[in-house]
Amino acid sequence: MLAMLPEVPDITDDALSTRLRLRLDDLTKPPGSLGRLEDLAHRIGCILGSEAPKLTQPQLVVFAADHGLAVHRVSAWPSEVTAQMVENMLAGGAAVSVLARQHALTLTVVDCGVRRDFEPRAGLVVCKSARGTADALSGPAMTPQQCAGQIAAGAALVRTLPGNVLLLGEMGIANSASAALLMSGLTGLDLAECTGAGAGLDAAGVAHKIAVLRRVQAVHADARTPLAMLQAFGGLEMATMTGAVLQAAAGRRVIVVDGFICTAAVAVAAALRPHVLQCCVWSHRGAEHGHGRWLDRLGAQPLLDLGLRLGEGSGAALCWPLLQSACALLNGMASFGAAGVSHRNGHNAHRAA
Amino acid sequence: MLAMLPEVPDITDDALSTRLRLRLDDLTKPPGSLGRLEDLAHRIGCILGSEAPKLTQPQLVVFAADHGLAVHRVSAWPSEVTAQMVENMLAGGAAVSVLARQHALTLTVVDCGVRRDFEPRAGLVVCKSARGTADALSGPAMTPQQCAGQIAAGAALVRTLPGNVLLLGEMGIANSASAALLMSGLTGLDLAECTGAGAGLDAAGVAHKIAVLRRVQAVHADARTPLAMLQAFGGLEMATMTGAVLQAAAGRRVIVVDGFICTAAVAVAAALRPHVLQCCVWSHRGAEHGHGRWLDRLGAQPLLDLGLRLGEGSGAALCWPLLQSACALLNGMASFGAAGVSHRNGHNAHRAA
Repeated sequence: MLAMLPEVPDITDDALSTRLRLRLDDLTKPPGSLGRLEDLAHRIGCILGSEAPKLTQPQLVVFAADHGLAVHRVSAWPSEVTAQMVENMLAGGAAVSVLARQHALTLTVVDCGVRRDFEPRAGLVVCKSARGTADALSGPAMTPQQCAGQIAAGAALVRTLPGNVLLLGEMGIANSASAALLMSGLTGLDLAECTGAGAGLDAAGVAHKIAVLRRVQAVHADARTPLAMLQAFGGLEMATMTGAVLQAAAGRRVIVVDGFICTAAVAVAAALRPHVLQCCVWSHRGAEHGHGRWLDRLGAQPLLDLGLRLGEGSGAALCWPLLQSACALLNGMASFGAAGVSHRNGHNAHRAA
Repeated sequence: MLAMLPEVPDITDDALSTRLRLRLDDLTKPPGSLGRLEDLAHRIGCILGSEAPKLTQPQLVVFAADHGLAVHRVSAWPSEVTAQMVENMLAGGAAVSVLARQHALTLTVVDCGVRRDFEPRAGLVVCKSARGTADALSGPAMTPQQCAGQIAAGAALVRTLPGNVLLLGEMGIANSASAALLMSGLTGLDLAECTGAGAGLDAAGVAHKIAVLRRVQAVHADARTPLAMLQAFGGLEMATMTGAVLQAAAGRRVIVVDGFICTAAVAVAAALRPHVLQCCVWSHRGAEHGHGRWLDRLGAQPLLDLGLRLGEGSGAALCWPLLQSACALLNGMASFGAAGVSHRNGHNAHRAA
């Protein structure tokens, strides 16, 4: 399986990195005064291998699937909501639909394993090997073939997408439970540090969720590699997203990561191919317990911190204008020389005072 | 003078506030899951007095002026940069120019008191009573007539602007020194808590700046009201912006506050007319020392925290898409009933497990 995954090369290019920094410092502003926007412009330039990066045809892809674990009431919402929200997304009424329209992002919903089947229509891609994962409390969530197939399908999907940006989103009732298991497995942190309210459990609901997940973890104590964990207690949407992320990084696309569940897929991908992280832009620090700590572990500095806990790709879509701004500033601002703007005082100001 | 200022009424409307919250909770997402975006939609609805608020013809206004204090080397940049950057903004090469273009914000640069005069052209408004403030170390920065005239000019300018959104920006070498004096005067905090690196002083430069400002503060120890402080050590651009903010709030426009200097103008306006704060959206927490604490004092929760320290209105412009998103979500998302999406489980999930 490992050998079948896309290779993700190290894209470090010290010369380009230096040229980008010099270019940013020659724009008509105090050096560094655009803060994180300058780092973002630098990162996008490095990913796209250009001093004048252009973001093209951004693709917002929502990976959707159901979860066998939902029968144990680890979510505040019933499983049928996954399919209902897929319909809502395709009909244009979900938060991610509204945001994709606002920003002219192409929205694709991928049925990676929803329990219900959908009528074919524009914006919907189907690549599912099962109608939801099996109950991970009773056995593996996926067979090895299902897991490998979803990863391959995610990679294949990205190869068909135009443009150089992939924005990640997801939908799947109970998938924060699956992501918490992956976080605990990949980081070694206790499940209590990784498990949150998801889409709205109360404190007692979270305690119940943790108790269920401890039992799942015990069942799969022998799952120790990233792929073994993904198969044992991951989700079909996360496996598909993992493949998509690997392919996007292999093709040097900018990957805009959404919240907790997308972080899980990227973390699995990065555990397999560490250079994946070079291509990631982290959209936001979500309200889900554990997300902030996971981002810290991954060395990720998210752009937004708005207390979001919706998923869908809403955070990725909300931060998209910042990526556009970073490129627009890099490419559109005047240099000191061209604008006839004086440089700062040549000596430290106080000495002449 | 006080009697001449625009009245700013209390816009509290409990019934509207409740209707907005109910509407937000009926959208197809877990209640509260859009985090700060929901608060933002609620605030915009309250300002505009509508359950379905529409932002129209946003006006990004950059208030520019020079500062007499600059002769004491309280900035890392020479005074002529103010005029050069005004030219750069009008020519389209400044950061704020690029961001205004990106977001289709109408950009107006107001010469409130730049030392150099400019050729008339589109996008430039001139309302200056002096070519820079007087040196506040030797006497008042403005005469009472100048201060009142700039406030009135700012209010008059806003009355001529279309739309229902005012985004604030500023340009003025040494104006962070003036803003630090206003912060210390209005909050009672020591100058060391209020004074930062501005556009790039090193540690010794900041120490020198604080020493100069302590002398200025001693000279004007009798300036105890907001207007007296503004006249004693404020800036012409800040006085103009204060008038603009008062008028914008009086007309129930959404006021998008940029960084430290714009916060100073809003703080003066709010000290005169406290309900001004009801109309404000705080774009970002800047890197300037003191900005975060001042925001806290004002009860302001900024949307972005990107380490910006440029001014110009760059933070206000960068956060603008979030305001658009908040309204688009409120107006464009489906309700649970309309989309046929199930509500959450009626009882706590764990009880049935």
